[in-house]
Amino acid sequence: MPTVSQDIIDSIRNPSEQEVAHVDAWWRANNYLTVGQIYLKSNPLLRRPLEPDDIKPRLLGHWGTSPGLSLIYAHASRLIQKTGQEMIYITGPGHGGPAIVAATYLEDTYTECFPDITQDEEGLRRLFRQFSAPGGIPSHASVTTPGSINEGGELGYALVHGFGAVFDNPNLIALTVVGDGEAETAPLEGSWKSISFLNPARDGAVLPVLHLNGAKIASPTVQGRKDPDEVRRIYEGHGYDVIEVEGSDLPGMHYRFADALGEAYSKIQSIQHTARTEGVIQGRRPRWPMIILRSPKGWTGPTTVDGVQIEGTWRSHQVPLSGVRDNPDHLRQLEEWMRSYRPEELFDDAGRPTDAVRAINPSGEWRMSAHPAGNGGGQYSPLELPDWRSLAIDFDPAERGRFRDESTAYLGRLLEQIYRLNPTTFRLFCPDETNSNRLGAVFNASDRTFMESTTEEDVKLSADGRVMEVLSEHLTHGWLEGYCLTGRHGMFASYEAFGMVSVSQTVQHTKWLKEAIDIDWRESVPSLNILLSSTAWRNDHNGFSHQGPGVLSTIVNMQGRIVRTYLPPDANCLLEVSDYIFRTKDRVNVIVQDKQPQFQWLTPDEAHAHCRKGFGIWDWAGNEDLGSGADPDIVIACAGDVVTMEAVAAAQIIRQRLPHMKVRVVNVVRLQTLSRPKDHPTGMSDQDFAEAFTDTTDVLFCFHGYAGVIHQLVHGRPDVDRFHVRGFQEEGTTTTPFDMVVRNKTDRYSLVIDAINNTRRTIRGGADLKRWCETQLERHEEYKVEHLEDMPEILDWAFEPNPAYS
Amino acid sequence: MPTVSQDIIDSIRNPSEQEVAHVDAWWRANNYLTVGQIYLKSNPLLRRPLEPDDIKPRLLGHWGTSPGLSLIYAHASRLIQKTGQEMIYITGPGHGGPAIVAATYLEDTYTECFPDITQDEEGLRRLFRQFSAPGGIPSHASVTTPGSINEGGELGYALVHGFGAVFDNPNLIALTVVGDGEAETAPLEGSWKSISFLNPARDGAVLPVLHLNGAKIASPTVQGRKDPDEVRRIYEGHGYDVIEVEGSDLPGMHYRFADALGEAYSKIQSIQHTARTEGVIQGRRPRWPMIILRSPKGWTGPTTVDGVQIEGTWRSHQVPLSGVRDNPDHLRQLEEWMRSYRPEELFDDAGRPTDAVRAINPSGEWRMSAHPAGNGGGQYSPLELPDWRSLAIDFDPAERGRFRDESTAYLGRLLEQIYRLNPTTFRLFCPDETNSNRLGAVFNASDRTFMESTTEEDVKLSADGRVMEVLSEHLTHGWLEGYCLTGRHGMFASYEAFGMVSVSQTVQHTKWLKEAIDIDWRESVPSLNILLSSTAWRNDHNGFSHQGPGVLSTIVNMQGRIVRTYLPPDANCLLEVSDYIFRTKDRVNVIVQDKQPQFQWLTPDEAHAHCRKGFGIWDWAGNEDLGSGADPDIVIACAGDVVTMEAVAAAQIIRQRLPHMKVRVVNVVRLQTLSRPKDHPTGMSDQDFAEAFTDTTDVLFCFHGYAGVIHQLVHGRPDVDRFHVRGFQEEGTTTTPFDMVVRNKTDRYSLVIDAINNTRRTIRGGADLKRWCETQLERHEEYKVEHLEDMPEILDWAFEPNPAYS
Repeated sequence: MPTVSQDIIDSIRNPSEQEVAHVDAWWRANNYLTVGQIYLKSNPLLRRPLEPDDIKPRLLGHWGTSPGLSLIYAHASRLIQKTGQEMIYITGPGHGGPAIVAATYLEDTYTECFPDITQDEEGLRRLFRQFSAPGGIPSHASVTTPGSINEGGELGYALVHGFGAVFDNPNLIALTVVGDGEAETAPLEGSWKSISFLNPARDGAVLPVLHLNGAKIASPTVQGRKDPDEVRRIYEGHGYDVIEVEGSDLPGMHYRFADALGEAYSKIQSIQHTARTEGVIQGRRPRWPMIILRSPKGWTGPTTVDGVQIEGTWRSHQVPLSGVRDNPDHLRQLEEWMRSYRPEELFDDAGRPTDAVRAINPSGEWRMSAHPAGNGGGQYSPLELPDWRSLAIDFDPAERGRFRDESTAYLGRLLEQIYRLNPTTFRLFCPDETNSNRLGAVFNASDRTFMESTTEEDVKLSADGRVMEVLSEHLTHGWLEGYCLTGRHGMFASYEAFGMVSVSQTVQHTKWLKEAIDIDWRESVPSLNILLSSTAWRNDHNGFSHQGPGVLSTIVNMQGRIVRTYLPPDANCLLEVSDYIFRTKDRVNVIVQDKQPQFQWLTPDEAHAHCRKGFGIWDWAGNEDLGSGADPDIVIACAGDVVTMEAVAAAQIIRQRLPHMKVRVVNVVRLQTLSRPKDHPTGMSDQDFAEAFTDTTDVLFCFHGYAGVIHQLVHGRPDVDRFHVRGFQEEGTTTTPFDMVVRNKTDRYSLVIDAINNTRRTIRGGADLKRWCETQLERHEEYKVEHLEDMPEILDWAFEPNPAYS
Repeated sequence: MPTVSQDIIDSIRNPSEQEVAHVDAWWRANNYLTVGQIYLKSNPLLRRPLEPDDIKPRLLGHWGTSPGLSLIYAHASRLIQKTGQEMIYITGPGHGGPAIVAATYLEDTYTECFPDITQDEEGLRRLFRQFSAPGGIPSHASVTTPGSINEGGELGYALVHGFGAVFDNPNLIALTVVGDGEAETAPLEGSWKSISFLNPARDGAVLPVLHLNGAKIASPTVQGRKDPDEVRRIYEGHGYDVIEVEGSDLPGMHYRFADALGEAYSKIQSIQHTARTEGVIQGRRPRWPMIILRSPKGWTGPTTVDGVQIEGTWRSHQVPLSGVRDNPDHLRQLEEWMRSYRPEELFDDAGRPTDAVRAINPSGEWRMSAHPAGNGGGQYSPLELPDWRSLAIDFDPAERGRFRDESTAYLGRLLEQIYRLNPTTFRLFCPDETNSNRLGAVFNASDRTFMESTTEEDVKLSADGRVMEVLSEHLTHGWLEGYCLTGRHGMFASYEAFGMVSVSQTVQHTKWLKEAIDIDWRESVPSLNILLSSTAWRNDHNGFSHQGPGVLSTIVNMQGRIVRTYLPPDANCLLEVSDYIFRTKDRVNVIVQDKQPQFQWLTPDEAHAHCRKGFGIWDWAGNEDLGSGADPDIVIACAGDVVTMEAVAAAQIIRQRLPHMKVRVVNVVRLQTLSRPKDHPTGMSDQDFAEAFTDTTDVLFCFHGYAGVIHQLVHGRPDVDRFHVRGFQEEGTTTTPFDMVVRNKTDRYSLVIDAINNTRRTIRGGADLKRWCETQLERHEEYKVEHLEDMPEILDWAFEPNPAYS
């Protein structure tokens, strides 16, 4: 990292008049371009008086937050110029999009990314027209905004994205602006403690600017109206060194903000220098600086409109002059407002921003809009991956289904190797459940990260660790997003049910990637990988609140170009799938698999073939004569580990007790292969579908999640009426694993009954077998509570190979 | 409210030795019962030495947090006894379920609710056996726990539930324990600011006890290891008066906690007394007390096991002695541990808790486990509702579809009346969007609630207001849950996309209700009503992040007994549906409707009939001869306001340009009527389904949300292959409303093309009409950005009545 002298710090904190004039020119230009984007479709430089026809038919955008955002941006650029500091800008108040677009335009980055938005009057006209227009750009600082890694539409994630971006990015500062609206959200309030996980020696820094302008869309904010002493106390309590700037006077605010920014920067430098030269002392978490900036909402805009106060109130949140097309007085006021920035000083005759405006722009990749971290692929390098087969379970196929093991523990060992091979470009993010999810082998390679004090009783916990654990899905998911969007790799592992806590983040990240892959200057970024373990079926001990497979139902609605869902049935399949997803880019990969000991079905070679195809007939689990060309009596399909066991067990009961009934077992690993190819890129062809599921045989589909997911995926396939889906029916409680499947009718006995009921011919002996199955279920019901120790569990069950296929 | 004298306060703060002995006896009894539930299936009173056979086959439960929970409970009971204070206990560390179950047993409430769990040795045996056992009770403080309104499985919501419970409950204190694990979650961190919305004159109080025992399941917590001065500062910043208690010495901790609790209570009394006698002064938000209790995790349990430290570490989180069945040393240690509570002093010969133990129990409804607020129906009274027809749009059917209005504004006026008629039992909860969602008429009846300072520019904002706005879906949703679970009524209104932010809360509340309706002593509670407005289709101005109809996809998987989803097409239908849902109990009602001006279709009478049935043929929108008995060429079905307009417009194009093609329009308001009756209580009969959708005609279903919802609901209906669903395909950006439907192929022109393509006969002129539609779409594409002002919008479209049906 560059070491910055005290002289330079002093010069940042005490700008000359000339420097303030340059910052102010840039700021005025930026405010001008912001207003222009909101209002104008022509006459961008006010070469002639404004006319109603110059005004857009539909006025969109958010003015209120924009001048503050630009002020911060301008001063940061000046600091970068003086220091060579690497910095990105995270716009929490994402609705201030026009201000950030304007900034990137003034830095030339916008023109580099969008060559038709030229640095002249015609370019300005296009810049203005496209904003919030059909075929143009969205209104937020978002995917189309150079340098942005944060979509400010769904508020709450600015800080977690900032921290995710600087983990293992020691030279980077994420200058992160949080609006006082966003500051009210729970995810944002939960994010401040991220500094308890930030190591100043090896990570970069987040410089939060809490921008309090006092109001959200229609009313004041809590922090905007609290006693400033209370507000300061909150952040001091979180561990920050709070620097406050307040006012609206000019140029006074320039001097004061320059001083505050320089002070904050100096403190970051000092913290990092100490940590990097003297080492990090456990429990001495630095007091990182943050800035609280209080400036009026809608600053420099109209003070009053129609006699009503606008500037400094919630009324300036969006478009402060709404009647400009029809109200000559409003039009005049708009023109005065725009001319107050003195555009004639800011743009030359051709319409190009003048050198005075450009004077504070950093060069090249030092521009915040052009730093590689803001376009994460620029920092991307592929993961080094071990040969997963070296970690796999090698067994004789005759032993399949005859021993149990904790599949996710194998993933844990894969992650351990990945940590070793990629010491600074991979992290696991997990809400306090790494061990619980059986991924604890990672602790052989890395501790948990923790900057607070530790004791002798703590295990695998230190400032040097890189396993990210905090009891918050919002934080762990959000950190990973920031880490991936800046080009690094990772995995978010959660209890399946609590994947719903952060599912809105999953949705928003998917939307981000969907927009990003269509933008040619955006580099591809590592996929967001999600493991949902401790699943619905095996949270028998924790109860109903822990039993919810809802993430799958959400994620299958997202764009198929981005989303892949995997339900590996055993350890080797999990390893194969994991190896695959860690090589992908621009995707959201969701793996659902439980952590409890489970039967192992496929050898490494079989797992490879099965998972790459994504589905397949398990001939060894059925009893049809595949060469005969005859369809079986029933197809029992399955996707998900527990239900796969039940499906195989049901087929075994049929094989053993009703051998003349022909059953086929189909296992699906890549869930979306069930879709038609036109609905999902991995959808199986019509021929493959018919080969797996026949054309006419009924299919009893035993599914891990809610049945609707399968109904939705197979819709449009021929004769879908023959698909009978059994899944999680929201019947849960604290009970045994077997009772869970019984309650939801996905147990082996219910499946056998369903299978017999859905054959197209009458199976001799079927009625007897159904009666036997019902007896098993009745026996199960009898043994609750009072016969705890005698509960019929199925843990002593094992697969009996079919001699014909072993 | 009772006014409590200084003498009583003093006596709470300075207990006599005898009083401490009683508290301690109760506490020991409670700890004993906690351990018993985790370990024993027989020999509950240790009448003989423990044997391996006394131990449950599967050890479940969480010991670590339990002794602290019990200590707080005991002292609160003593306080209640002395003061007559009404109080409920909210168990944030919900995994400490056995401690709370034990407490309710010691209070007799458990036996009153579950008569087979008697107050004798056999009752104790049953109490122990049933815990975390199949057919027994779940492991959390949850639905089956008397007095609980909080499921502690998904952490984060203890405080919001507490605040929700005390709004408009002036005599109630919600004693709310927050564990240091939960304190790390974002929703919990976002909840502290609830005091900025709590009016001491008319609301009750929340007394938060932040119980720091230093660790979560496998490692320490941030606040458990931060400098205590920093921790205090966070809460002082949020506005609390922090009282700290720390230690493990006995009886010292009893004296210190009694003092702290008395001090906190005295401060609450003083705040409320001042507010209720002198009035509330805007901007003088009281400094409410809170307690930070630091006690060892697993306090009073085994100090070390196998030479490893247990008490005070993360290792005591769950079951500290795991080998008791097989390891004689562990078994001995368990017996020593249980005997350390001196059970012989705590239970009489019959096994009944002794009078010394019972001495601190409050009586009747003063027991925290028996307060009516903890069993919300006990406080329930139906809403007074105005006649919705008095607010409806009365119009001549000939005018249908020929004028637009903002439908949600009508709901706003209904809510205004509800506020007036039910001044203390109804609230609207909305993240800063009441006006934006056009519900602003409520402000005629009530301001927004705000305890911080206000200015002249603030509008409809005061400490006296009861409209709850804060920029947090987690808070607003969670407050409403607490409000409903204590028997009061309300509505949560959100932007549709951001309903996903709190969707996990929606899921968990649904799970709560699903369990509650099967428990006979749980009274019914008002339904949780959700309005999702500012929908995907009309967030054309805000862009892709605001375009997400995912809540519907989640909620339709929940149990049908609880969930109802409504998509009213116009204002009268919205009024009718709203009037209906506000009368329901024990449901989660989700209404999806946009706020923008939309066509009005149905007169009040028609709306009533249509919504009560839930679906219906709109004969006036089609052109078939219904009396003829002949099926139409196509059925265009629709659910959702924007897509209904497109469906009607498509039918109109066909009527006008291809009159010999027969089209039927079916509108669905109650989405789940599409289900089979066996899948949902409102599912339409086979006959109704056939009457609406015919048996064989293809159905083009134009849906508001993701298509999969419809695929899932109609699955199992005859010949579902004929359903062609068009819905939101995750194609969005900042654009125009019409471009939104075009991008997702739900626009009128695409629908006409689809309709013609899916008829079973060749329609003469069909090819020409398809070509005309394609031309319209091409023209639309040409007009982006550069011809903004000429964009073909469809806002000048109006319905042309079919002369045959007007």
